[in-house]
Amino acid sequence: MDIFSFYMPTRLYFGNGAVKKLARARLPQGRGLIITGGTSTTRLGYVAKVQDALAEAGHETLVYNKVQPNPTIEGVRECAALCREEGIAFVVGLGGGSSIDTAKAVAIMATNEGDWWDYIHGGTGGGKRIANAGLPIVAIPTTAGTGTEADPFTVITNGEEKIGGGGEKCFPTISVVDPDFMMTVPPHLTAYQGFDAFFHAAEGYLAKTATPISEMFSLKAIELIGKSLATAVHEGGNADARADVALANTLAGFVETLSSCTGEHAIEHALSAFHPSLPHGAGLIMISKAYWSRFSESAGDRLVAVARALGNKEADKPDDFINALVSLQRKCSVSDLRLSGYGVQPDEFGKIADNAFDTMGGLFRVDPHPLTREDVIAILEESYK
Amino acid sequence: MDIFSFYMPTRLYFGNGAVKKLARARLPQGRGLIITGGTSTTRLGYVAKVQDALAEAGHETLVYNKVQPNPTIEGVRECAALCREEGIAFVVGLGGGSSIDTAKAVAIMATNEGDWWDYIHGGTGGGKRIANAGLPIVAIPTTAGTGTEADPFTVITNGEEKIGGGGEKCFPTISVVDPDFMMTVPPHLTAYQGFDAFFHAAEGYLAKTATPISEMFSLKAIELIGKSLATAVHEGGNADARADVALANTLAGFVETLSSCTGEHAIEHALSAFHPSLPHGAGLIMISKAYWSRFSESAGDRLVAVARALGNKEADKPDDFINALVSLQRKCSVSDLRLSGYGVQPDEFGKIADNAFDTMGGLFRVDPHPLTREDVIAILEESYK
Repeated sequence: MDIFSFYMPTRLYFGNGAVKKLARARLPQGRGLIITGGTSTTRLGYVAKVQDALAEAGHETLVYNKVQPNPTIEGVRECAALCREEGIAFVVGLGGGSSIDTAKAVAIMATNEGDWWDYIHGGTGGGKRIANAGLPIVAIPTTAGTGTEADPFTVITNGEEKIGGGGEKCFPTISVVDPDFMMTVPPHLTAYQGFDAFFHAAEGYLAKTATPISEMFSLKAIELIGKSLATAVHEGGNADARADVALANTLAGFVETLSSCTGEHAIEHALSAFHPSLPHGAGLIMISKAYWSRFSESAGDRLVAVARALGNKEADKPDDFINALVSLQRKCSVSDLRLSGYGVQPDEFGKIADNAFDTMGGLFRVDPHPLTREDVIAILEESYK
Repeated sequence: MDIFSFYMPTRLYFGNGAVKKLARARLPQGRGLIITGGTSTTRLGYVAKVQDALAEAGHETLVYNKVQPNPTIEGVRECAALCREEGIAFVVGLGGGSSIDTAKAVAIMATNEGDWWDYIHGGTGGGKRIANAGLPIVAIPTTAGTGTEADPFTVITNGEEKIGGGGEKCFPTISVVDPDFMMTVPPHLTAYQGFDAFFHAAEGYLAKTATPISEMFSLKAIELIGKSLATAVHEGGNADARADVALANTLAGFVETLSSCTGEHAIEHALSAFHPSLPHGAGLIMISKAYWSRFSESAGDRLVAVARALGNKEADKPDDFINALVSLQRKCSVSDLRLSGYGVQPDEFGKIADNAFDTMGGLFRVDPHPLTREDVIAILEESYK
C-alpha cells in the first residue's frame, strides 16, 4: 500500500440548527468579524442567528457585508485593515465560497505582513510562505458547492488573475454546516453547485492521489448526490434532500483536502476565466461527458464504481457511468446548457487549453493518464453546442 | 438530520515505510523521548528506525523502555519526571496501546500540575480539567487493536483501578501507522487485537451516537477485517493482509473518536478487571454472540449492514450477522475460547455486572435499547463454557 496521509483539523458541526453550537464554541475572547455578502444573508436572518449564538457565548460582533461574487484582493485588503483597526479576535465567513474564502484570506492578513498576493504561488503572486497562524476562522456556508468549509483553500481575484491560494493555516477552526441556511437557493444554482460538489468527489476518486480514506468520502458524497440532488433542485423546500446535498458537499470538501481535483477542473477554470458570466458548476456540467469518456480505458473500474455509487447497482462497464451522469443532468434540468450560450467561441479552444495547462497544469498530472493539449481541444469540441 | 460533529485533528501517515515521514515532520526543536516497552521494539529494530528518522530531522532522542502491559500510574510519574528533568520537547509512544497511552499521559503531566490521577473522572480520580496543552505526541503503533493513534483516550492503571482518561488534549499530534511494524505479532494476539478493532468499529456503528461520518469509517473497517483478518492470523508474513488489518484498526480509532463503544466493552472491561490474565480482545470474542443477539429486534437493520460489510452481500436478517461473526471467529481460530479457562466463575456474574454499570455505565446508555443488570448476567451465562 502506498503511503498516504490524513489531516483535516477543522471542528465540524453539521445538522439543522447547528448554528446554535456557536453559543458553546471555544473561540478567543473578544470581538468577531462576520464577513458576508450584502443581501440575502441579512435579509434571511442568517447574520442575526450567527450574532445571537455568538452573543450567547459573550462575543460582540461587527459585520463586513461587502463581499462580491469572485471576491477581490481589494476586498481582502479593506477587510483585513478593518480587522487590525478594530482588534478583531476571530473572523466568521458566512455565505458562499466568496465570503468564506475572503474570511480565510483576511484571517491570514490580520496576523502576517504584506499583502495576500505575496502569499500566492503562481501568476504575479509573490510566492512567499505564510509565517504566522491566522486569526481563528469560523466557516458557515449557505450554499452546497465549494466544500471550502472542509478544505484549506481560497480563490481570490486580482485584476485578471483568479488564482487558488491557501494552505494548512487556512483550515477553518470551526465549520458550521446548517442545511436550514440553504433552503432558498434557487433551482439552477442548486444544480450548478451540486454538480460542482459531485465533481470534487468524483474527480478526487478518479485522481491518482486518491487514498483509502478519501475514497470513502468520495463514494458517500456521490451516493448522497445521486439520491437527493434532483429533489433538492426541484423541491427546494425538501429539508431531507437539502441536508443530503449539504452533507455531500462537505464530504466532497474532505476529498479536496485529502485527494485532488483533476484536469476537468483545470479546463473549466480556463473557460470561466475568459467568460466570467459562465458559472463554474455549469461549465463542469457541459464538459463532463467528453472529459470522463477519455478515461473509459485507463480507469474503467473507477467509472464503474462511481456509477454504482450514483445508484446504478448493476453497473459493470464504464459507459454505465456516462449514462448515469447524463441521466442525472437531465433529472436536474441542466442537460440543455450550451457553451455558445455563454459566448464561448470555437476559435478560442486553443487559448483555453493553453490557459488550463499554464495556470492549473498540476491537475492534469493526477489524471489517470495524461491528457494532451490536443485532447483538451477535442474535449471542448465534443462539448460544444 | 440530528446535529453531529467531526473532530480528529491528528496528522496521520499510513503505509509501509511511513516511519520515514518523521524525517520531514514538523515537531518543536529539541529532544524527543521515545516511550516504549523493554523488548520487541528494540530487538526488531523499530526504536532504531524511529531514532534514525528523527535524527534526519535534527532531533536527538532519549529512550524510556520500561512500559509494561496495563501501564501504571507509577510508570507515568517516573516518565513524566524524566521529561521535565531532561527538558524534553516532544514524546513518541512506540508499541501497543500501553506505550502510546503512557506517552499521552506523560505529555500532559509534563506541562500540567499535580498527578495524572487528578485528571481522571471516575473512581478515586480527582476529576480536574486538564489546563494546559501537553507536549506534542507522536503515536507509532506496533499492534492493530486499540486505535489509540486516532483517538484522544488513555487507559492507565492505579492499583486496582483501571480507568479510561484523556480528552481532546490527548489527541496525537502525529500518528505513523507502518504495517511493517506489525509483521511479527503472533497469531493469537493478531486475532484478539483484530477483533478488538472490529468491535470498536461495529459497536460504534450499533451505538446511538453513530454519525453519517462515523458510519463510513465503521463499514470500511469492518469490510477490511472481513477480508483480511483470518489471513493476517494464519499468514503473519502476508503484507497485504497486515496492511488491511492495520488500516481497519486506525479507521476503528476514528470511530471511537466520532461515535462510542457500547455495553459490550463495559462488560468485557469488568471481566478483565477481575481476571487480568484475560486479554481484552479474547473477552470480547467470548461474549459477543450473546451480546449482539440482544439487538436483533431493536437494531436488526444495523446487524444486517454489518453482516454485509463483513462480506455476506446477501445478508437480509439479523441472524446473518450472528452467523458471519461466529464464522469469522472460527476462521481466526478463536471460536474455542472458554471463560472458565481464564478462571471466570459463574458466581461472579452479579459482581461483574455491577462493576460494568459502576465503572462504565455510560456505554450502556448508547446501546440501541438499554440492557438491564439481568440482561448482562444472562449474556455472561450464555457465553459461559
